[in-house]
Amino acid sequence: MADHNRPAPVAAPIHDLLVHRWSPRAFDSRPVAPDVLRSLFEAARWAASSYNAQPWYFIVGTKDDPENYQRVFGCFVEFNQGWAKNAPVVALSVAGMKFPHNGEPNRHAYHDVGQAAAYLALEATARGLQIHQMAGISPDKARQTFAIPEGHETVAGIAIGYPGDAATLPEPLRQRETAPRERRAASSFVFTGGWGKTSPIVAGK
Amino acid sequence: MADHNRPAPVAAPIHDLLVHRWSPRAFDSRPVAPDVLRSLFEAARWAASSYNAQPWYFIVGTKDDPENYQRVFGCFVEFNQGWAKNAPVVALSVAGMKFPHNGEPNRHAYHDVGQAAAYLALEATARGLQIHQMAGISPDKARQTFAIPEGHETVAGIAIGYPGDAATLPEPLRQRETAPRERRAASSFVFTGGWGKTSPIVAGK
Repeated sequence: MADHNRPAPVAAPIHDLLVHRWSPRAFDSRPVAPDVLRSLFEAARWAASSYNAQPWYFIVGTKDDPENYQRVFGCFVEFNQGWAKNAPVVALSVAGMKFPHNGEPNRHAYHDVGQAAAYLALEATARGLQIHQMAGISPDKARQTFAIPEGHETVAGIAIGYPGDAATLPEPLRQRETAPRERRAASSFVFTGGWGKTSPIVAGK
Repeated sequence: MADHNRPAPVAAPIHDLLVHRWSPRAFDSRPVAPDVLRSLFEAARWAASSYNAQPWYFIVGTKDDPENYQRVFGCFVEFNQGWAKNAPVVALSVAGMKFPHNGEPNRHAYHDVGQAAAYLALEATARGLQIHQMAGISPDKARQTFAIPEGHETVAGIAIGYPGDAATLPEPLRQRETAPRERRAASSFVFTGGWGKTSPIVAGK
């Protein structure tokens, strides 16, 4: 069994929930209770958004409803289907690209869907679950399958469930699952005064 | 003094950190220690991202460095300057719109900057700070001021600091600061089987 306690090697102290959130691909087949799933989407609900427009939507399928599971799963690219097939819950996030209050384009629709997805991920982490978000989906297939209306875009796929055994993954995914977690240094993305000028806040980090 | 304990009226249990994150506009002038700021950006660093591309950048100004504070602050629209002027720290988020590994467009750049900003917000909440994110900025002015290179877009403004007194805000902001926190019902955005079909997970919620 993989070690699912894979804390981020942080360069400065951050909250435990953030340290322990990561994106495994090994899922156990154990189902997720509906009230737990409800809390995950409730977490997404309380994200911040521009004009409080809440541009997020989620289309969800659970394995106890094979037809609707398959409709979501079928929108994942083949590579992602290879490992996501063990996840008991799959979802797609969708962004409303216009503000409801005036019909104008919402430049922050994807940004705010990202915030909602981050909350969902952290609520999952808090409950001993995991999620893995995927760019590798077919938005065209999603639009067709679910009749996603004009003005809305399918953003990402999400696999949800409990930790599984990394040994069940094919290589190179198995190795990736246990490789050190990596991020670029804060000095490369926190600036003060001008582009590329490392902020004193993170100087030398 | 405003009551800064303004928990979300959740419809299902979620983690305390998520319950207590909100977006006040009343800031105290108390500075934020550099090591605390460093942890906020460290939190952002550990967000998930497509291909682990980490497309987020932050340009930060603190009031003890008035010139560089002003350069960030000057990119906020006038309405936001009206309340953000009390925040001891201001920032802009910037998205790298292309993947570093192949130069192709990153469809999830804004989405992943949103995830990083959400982590920053939650780390702030955990430390008794608050952030308020703003759509109301001038990306053109930011590009000019900071020489933001092609292939990068300024996403949002962020005010960072400790809770202040809502009574110092002009109306209608003062009232907004204490009005009930609201979100649309989960039944309006969690679907199963097709667009607009409320998922059984959140039925009746």
